[in-house]
Amino acid sequence: MSTKSPLSDRSGWASGGAISELMAQAIANPDCLSLAAGFVDPATLPVDLVKQAAAEVLAAPDARDLLQYGTPAGAGRLRAAVLELFAMLEGVPTEELAETRGLTAGRVLLTNGSQQFLSLVCQALLNPGDVCLVAGPTYFVMLGTIAGVGGRAVRVETDDDGMTPAGLEAALDHFQTVGELPRVKLLYLVPDFENPSGVVLADRRRSELLDILDRRDPDGRIRVLEDAAYRELGFDGTIGASLWGRDRSDRVIYSGTFSKSFSPGLRIGFGLAPVELMQPLIDRKGNEDFGSAHFNQHLLARVLESDRYEAHVADVRRSYRRKRDALLAGLSEHLGDLPGVSWREPAGGLYVWANLPEGVSTGFDSPLAEAAQRDGVMYVPGELCYAPESVDPASGESRPRPTNHMRLSYGVLDVGLLREAAARLGRAVRSVL
Amino acid sequence: MSTKSPLSDRSGWASGGAISELMAQAIANPDCLSLAAGFVDPATLPVDLVKQAAAEVLAAPDARDLLQYGTPAGAGRLRAAVLELFAMLEGVPTEELAETRGLTAGRVLLTNGSQQFLSLVCQALLNPGDVCLVAGPTYFVMLGTIAGVGGRAVRVETDDDGMTPAGLEAALDHFQTVGELPRVKLLYLVPDFENPSGVVLADRRRSELLDILDRRDPDGRIRVLEDAAYRELGFDGTIGASLWGRDRSDRVIYSGTFSKSFSPGLRIGFGLAPVELMQPLIDRKGNEDFGSAHFNQHLLARVLESDRYEAHVADVRRSYRRKRDALLAGLSEHLGDLPGVSWREPAGGLYVWANLPEGVSTGFDSPLAEAAQRDGVMYVPGELCYAPESVDPASGESRPRPTNHMRLSYGVLDVGLLREAAARLGRAVRSVL
Repeated sequence: MSTKSPLSDRSGWASGGAISELMAQAIANPDCLSLAAGFVDPATLPVDLVKQAAAEVLAAPDARDLLQYGTPAGAGRLRAAVLELFAMLEGVPTEELAETRGLTAGRVLLTNGSQQFLSLVCQALLNPGDVCLVAGPTYFVMLGTIAGVGGRAVRVETDDDGMTPAGLEAALDHFQTVGELPRVKLLYLVPDFENPSGVVLADRRRSELLDILDRRDPDGRIRVLEDAAYRELGFDGTIGASLWGRDRSDRVIYSGTFSKSFSPGLRIGFGLAPVELMQPLIDRKGNEDFGSAHFNQHLLARVLESDRYEAHVADVRRSYRRKRDALLAGLSEHLGDLPGVSWREPAGGLYVWANLPEGVSTGFDSPLAEAAQRDGVMYVPGELCYAPESVDPASGESRPRPTNHMRLSYGVLDVGLLREAAARLGRAVRSVL
Repeated sequence: MSTKSPLSDRSGWASGGAISELMAQAIANPDCLSLAAGFVDPATLPVDLVKQAAAEVLAAPDARDLLQYGTPAGAGRLRAAVLELFAMLEGVPTEELAETRGLTAGRVLLTNGSQQFLSLVCQALLNPGDVCLVAGPTYFVMLGTIAGVGGRAVRVETDDDGMTPAGLEAALDHFQTVGELPRVKLLYLVPDFENPSGVVLADRRRSELLDILDRRDPDGRIRVLEDAAYRELGFDGTIGASLWGRDRSDRVIYSGTFSKSFSPGLRIGFGLAPVELMQPLIDRKGNEDFGSAHFNQHLLARVLESDRYEAHVADVRRSYRRKRDALLAGLSEHLGDLPGVSWREPAGGLYVWANLPEGVSTGFDSPLAEAAQRDGVMYVPGELCYAPESVDPASGESRPRPTNHMRLSYGVLDVGLLREAAARLGRAVRSVL
């Protein structure tokens, strides 16, 4: 930057972000088959439902209210509908949630997609230099969000069942040893069909991780941020209770979204936060934009109040399941015989995590990336999904980021194109092995 | 806060905000006549236009695209339409803007209301302790936004024609003298029918203020943030060219919104920024929410592309003019005879700035506020609209905030209720004089 425009320090923290680059790439290269974008399946986007709901809410006697300002926390009508949905997912009546956990619609904050909620939480909790523990790999956009407030993302050992208890203990030990435990403010987890790994944090693990925190941090000073973006997208029925549902220390902050289950173009996400965090989060939200679009909130509330939402999500699940199967079949056909090449079969969500032999880099500047571009297919380099810093359970040292993974999404492409994309990816991988 | 939840430092900066309190009050006390809320006139809210545009864009072949993610900077279609509108307001063809100023749709950033743009600019430019110069009085929410990033808002002498050149010189002198001129990063101005004062920054003043900056800061290091929220709401034809249009140093950042001219419930604002600021602003926006609602952007683009927008804004102007006249007539009738009580007649926008005799406080805890509550009328205490710090041109000292003013808005109430509100305000004021 020239001396003409001194930017703030925090401006430097908001790194351009691979997300912007990938989004722009996807839009600019329509011929390139994208296994990179986490966009939702265009075929599932609910044009008719939105058309119907828009017409209905705009025909109501209070239609003008929807076009007026709302409040920073969002429309009471949608906050109530979100609470109902959450109670349904938890399998606990709303009355019981209110009694046992003090959870009411007043603890629901509506945001501009769940990304804004994640950003608000980071802003409210993290000072520059504060630590957020994350899985390895984890949602790469969140790494940018943490960095964007000057925070340090530190990855914790993770396996096929999610973050390991030994890994969490080792990380806490490490920060205790170096006298920085008070800087650890947050543990970020995506327990359901994680982006990017597809992993479900195992039922037992959920309790074990919370138990470790309760033992080592009985005051609940270290918060857990549960990102449940993919919770409704399980292909094989319900999964275990949420971290929120198991929380005994009021430390879990829950983040949800309608971008994956309904429509990202409406930009509606939400969060549930402990009582004492609500006002700081609402204040910050008010400061940033006075609240999200009031019209959209009523439109979505209308959908949630009907039985149309459940039916739609069931359709979405069926569609993704079919597409997951297509991508997995394509990968088997075109990469199945390659030694050292493997992938995880996800039981929900939008992502397949693939491993190449060690030493074969998938990075933006790698021969593979070049080959993929030539063959007309895009993926997310796995490297982006690892926080730079880590704590190895054995040595306590930080280890370099693995570079031989890929995140493949079956979100956007249809079944036929997924097979074609797998074929192209197979060609590209073969050419560099 | 308990030790349980250590919040970030910046969380403390985001003061609850009078705006949240006033918004909540207005919604919670429907019987109280609110001259406080800057809400737009419910009667003008374009239910039919939104209904029509929603149906049209959702019937288009690309309807699904609108429900997908957009990009952080916003939909190209709306960015182009915004550029057209801006060119029309400037009275300069878009081609000429591109040639002479390099202004293209790529320099339009769409945000979640203009509040988000103001917030992004503060985040991008202000480090904690950096200074933003403001008029006295100024838009009180902006004071919270500046404080929310740890910035210092400092008020500059202001009269009936807006910020004074002598005041700006004095402020720059002061910071030079104390060796803090490099901390002055921003000059925030609302040149058209300012919120809260109703003042139009005089034509000559616009040039003079920019001339002072060009002379004292030839590199354009000190940015000007022009908040043009009320630009389209002039009752007597066009007003002078914008600060942006007079800018010779690429220092002016322009902020606009469709909340006042169309519908706040869609949450669409925008900004035009110098080239070198675009990427930092887009990065920050991407970090915060990936971009505003794509659906709403296409819906508004559809309206702007038709001739419906211009006709609607003309209706809005007529409605506010009628309501301004009603409030002014009510004030004359019920407060006109009171010595030391006066107000400014605005030529546009939504606000009347009223003065009480010195020593008569209008603050939240004042006898007047109590009387107003008893009589069922709300206003914004003028004190909120003054930055705590100031530089007096004569002495160079900081002076306490004036406490004897009120912001009265004719936005929400209809003509009949405006007269009744003025009567109630008259009773309340009489009771404390």
